[in-house]
Amino acid sequence: MSEQVTLEQVQALVTRAPFHQWLGLTVVAVGDDNIEIRAKWREEWVVNVERRYTHGGILAALIDLAADFALIKQIGHGVPTIDMRVDYHRVAMPGDLIMRGKVIRVGSQFATAEAQIFDLDGKLIASGRGTYLTAPPKPA
Amino acid sequence: MSEQVTLEQVQALVTRAPFHQWLGLTVVAVGDDNIEIRAKWREEWVVNVERRYTHGGILAALIDLAADFALIKQIGHGVPTIDMRVDYHRVAMPGDLIMRGKVIRVGSQFATAEAQIFDLDGKLIASGRGTYLTAPPKPA
Amino acid sequence: MSEQVTLEQVQALVTRAPFHQWLGLTVVAVGDDNIEIRAKWREEWVVNVERRYTHGGILAALIDLAADFALIKQIGHGVPTIDMRVDYHRVAMPGDLIMRGKVIRVGSQFATAEAQIFDLDGKLIASGRGTYLTAPPKPA
Amino acid sequence: MSEQVTLEQVQALVTRAPFHQWLGLTVVAVGDDNIEIRAKWREEWVVNVERRYTHGGILAALIDLAADFALIKQIGHGVPTIDMRVDYHRVAMPGDLIMRGKVIRVGSQFATAEAQIFDLDGKLIASGRGTYLTAPPKPA
Repeated sequence: MSEQVTLEQVQALVTRAPFHQWLGLTVVAVGDDNIEIRAKWREEWVVNVERRYTHGGILAALIDLAADFALIKQIGHGVPTIDMRVDYHRVAMPGDLIMRGKVIRVGSQFATAEAQIFDLDGKLIASGRGTYLTAPPKPA
Repeated sequence: MSEQVTLEQVQALVTRAPFHQWLGLTVVAVGDDNIEIRAKWREEWVVNVERRYTHGGILAALIDLAADFALIKQIGHGVPTIDMRVDYHRVAMPGDLIMRGKVIRVGSQFATAEAQIFDLDGKLIASGRGTYLTAPPKPA
Repeated sequence: MSEQVTLEQVQALVTRAPFHQWLGLTVVAVGDDNIEIRAKWREEWVVNVERRYTHGGILAALIDLAADFALIKQIGHGVPTIDMRVDYHRVAMPGDLIMRGKVIRVGSQFATAEAQIFDLDGKLIASGRGTYLTAPPKPA
Repeated sequence: MSEQVTLEQVQALVTRAPFHQWLGLTVVAVGDDNIEIRAKWREEWVVNVERRYTHGGILAALIDLAADFALIKQIGHGVPTIDMRVDYHRVAMPGDLIMRGKVIRVGSQFATAEAQIFDLDGKLIASGRGTYLTAPPKPA
């Protein structure tokens, strides 16, 4: 447990990952059991060149990382995803996205957390949840 | 239905998406109810800079698109994902990845398909499944 | 749409299903986008005879039906489940269970809804979500 | 690990659970990483009294237990479900059901397994997968 972690420390942890840098992540707010993160749209996200909306795989990545980092105050670092589910509600047109992650339950061996993605008009784009490994690996 | 679609046509459909280009996708084989696609590793996939493994969000995207394109011979084009699940089995170290997608069931309104990701040693990295929208949207 | 449906009407719809009768379901409250249902514990739910807790399959059924009936004011009747996910948080000891279902998004072809199960002490036992078919089947 | 477990022993383990007795489970075959189980239809499974098909919650329970018991040769006993997903492919009309469970991956902390449900005509009714806890709980 490391509940004293600051927003700046969470931003630093998030930014360490090259994939997170590519996603242009800014940590907006960190609560005891929740987090808000913003992602900066980029051309490479597009799946449909005519209609210009974002690939569902990008949305899946954003759900995964927002749910994972919702656990940051309770775990102190990012943790491995065991499995996840994503539900797609609306197409995401070009523009930044806001993710809100929230802890559902933390146990000694694994945790469950959920996340939502909103566009800048506040419309719900996707939501989902994952199971995360909180137990340290067994020594060999 | 468009069962006459060739591997080259599937490759062209896949490559149209900027995100697929970024993922470096090559369609290896297309069967009646399955597909094999290869993705080219890139530095931006990394989540952990010390251990160098690939972000789970990239793996989620690969599962989604491989399951989606497993439907190509039966649907004739990529279709919207309604929801998906990914299970993570091993960390993916730097190197290209092989995805195998397979149709589970196609209905008039939605379809179910699954996919696996293997590394170049043939080890199973991740697997999952999704529900895909096969019905055209209702006219307004 | 049939927003005028009353709690008594929802109870009648729920009770029509023999499986729902076996589960001893009582509809406690019906909101515009949510529902609360109580299930009556019975000996046949037990999976572990020493520790006496309830089988996860029963909990899965309760998640499914509570998410489904959260849609009742917007759809007017129970609808087919396309797929669902359940996360197990704590074992359910003998005793009645409370389910709370909530709509996430309703579309013309499918809807997403979620549900939670609590024990009588208010502890979260399980949670999950499903995709439900809202489009009428195509005429043959 | 207890790879010497016999079909009779697996049947005995399965039958210990009152819910499994209610489901009328017969273990048909046990392989190294797979299992086949039959469930005996009963009137209480019905959700729709006119059309007489089985409630999706029953199918979810059958998926969960078949995936769980696919692990029996590798784990030696039933294990707690962490989370699961079920996809519904066809309605299940009155009649016994056949479940086939198969191990996807076993780790020291958790395992992934999948299952399918078939009717007596061999038609695929539902399929799904779950994550199961293989680590013993930490001592208090």
